[in-house]
Amino acid sequence: MRKANAAADARSATPSLARREREKAETRRLILGTARALFTRGGYHNTTMRRIADRIGYTATAIYHHFADKESLMLELCAGDFRELGRALTSIGRVADPIERIRQMGRAYVRFALEHPEQFRFMFLIERPMPGPEEVHRLDPGEDGYQFLLGSVREAMAQGRFRPEFRDPDVVAQSLWAAVHGIATIHVNTPEVGHKWLDLRDPLETADVCCDALMQGLLQAP
Amino acid sequence: MRKANAAADARSATPSLARREREKAETRRLILGTARALFTRGGYHNTTMRRIADRIGYTATAIYHHFADKESLMLELCAGDFRELGRALTSIGRVADPIERIRQMGRAYVRFALEHPEQFRFMFLIERPMPGPEEVHRLDPGEDGYQFLLGSVREAMAQGRFRPEFRDPDVVAQSLWAAVHGIATIHVNTPEVGHKWLDLRDPLETADVCCDALMQGLLQAP
Repeated sequence: MRKANAAADARSATPSLARREREKAETRRLILGTARALFTRGGYHNTTMRRIADRIGYTATAIYHHFADKESLMLELCAGDFRELGRALTSIGRVADPIERIRQMGRAYVRFALEHPEQFRFMFLIERPMPGPEEVHRLDPGEDGYQFLLGSVREAMAQGRFRPEFRDPDVVAQSLWAAVHGIATIHVNTPEVGHKWLDLRDPLETADVCCDALMQGLLQAP
Repeated sequence: MRKANAAADARSATPSLARREREKAETRRLILGTARALFTRGGYHNTTMRRIADRIGYTATAIYHHFADKESLMLELCAGDFRELGRALTSIGRVADPIERIRQMGRAYVRFALEHPEQFRFMFLIERPMPGPEEVHRLDPGEDGYQFLLGSVREAMAQGRFRPEFRDPDVVAQSLWAAVHGIATIHVNTPEVGHKWLDLRDPLETADVCCDALMQGLLQAP
């Protein structure tokens, strides 16, 4: 690690500046990750900047050097996490058939939640202020998961794929989102519930069955 | 109020005992409601018995007179809330057709979440220990929402109502639960998101469309 850094610095015209930038970025990442863990565990409202600083052995002053306040820290975390989820969904954008694309998106959404439970909790499950798009750096269209889903629904609708009673693309998109969001939430939030209260099935299997049934119900008979 | 109490006491054989019982029950309800509010706002792990006591102007000692510890308090809250949700679902049990019953259950689930957002948050969204059935007073079969749903799915399956590829009653029940759970979660947890990020539709309308599509996909063609 240190060796690689040294090599990179040797190649750089301003080695100390490059190193400082890299260190600053690393510190920001450390602060963001620690804040997310504390927000999801202890609640956004209960977590102070001092507590985040304490956890990583910084002074509160040092942390304010990186983020003006708790809200800007939360906003940056939020923007980054939504961008990551958006990318996980839009990365399957090559699929030509909008219906097949929607199916794959559903599976990718559940997989993202299972693989990033803390991010999913922070994004959707904890109580925190909900910023508007103008407060977060605007997501690129290619990074906005909901818009990507909605666009695919509109495309399928324009091709006459849906039954005529399903006319509102937002209601259809929100039904599809809700189904996979429900599966993700049940499994992320109460992973051990299956062993105690009910015979909880594999989330990806449930997602497949649920999306298959939902699509079959939405689509015109072939 | 005071007058009515006096009249009730006059009718009672042991007026002071009856009054004391009633007061005790009222105190327990107050403690439970306060604890739920603090758990959902500040997180279960951060909320101490002392803080709950402080909020209602009791000493910590007085609160321990009613609940042995925070866990027993949480368990009783949990049992009561799941019983209430179970009743909201099972109260539609008179519906003879299992498919129509499942539809109504979906709507009732979303309505329960919208009308009791704090209970819904406490039950499903905050991070807290997940008790097993043996730790909570066992729910009557008539008060267990999941079992009621599962029973209805089994009944419809036995009638040959579902397409043959949907054979596992638990996967089908969990798909149906997930869909309405997703709608409820999105609306309970981020009520204002609709005005900021996307054109969020009415949750009961979305529940109807989502359940219609899901049932149409699950059921044999008529």
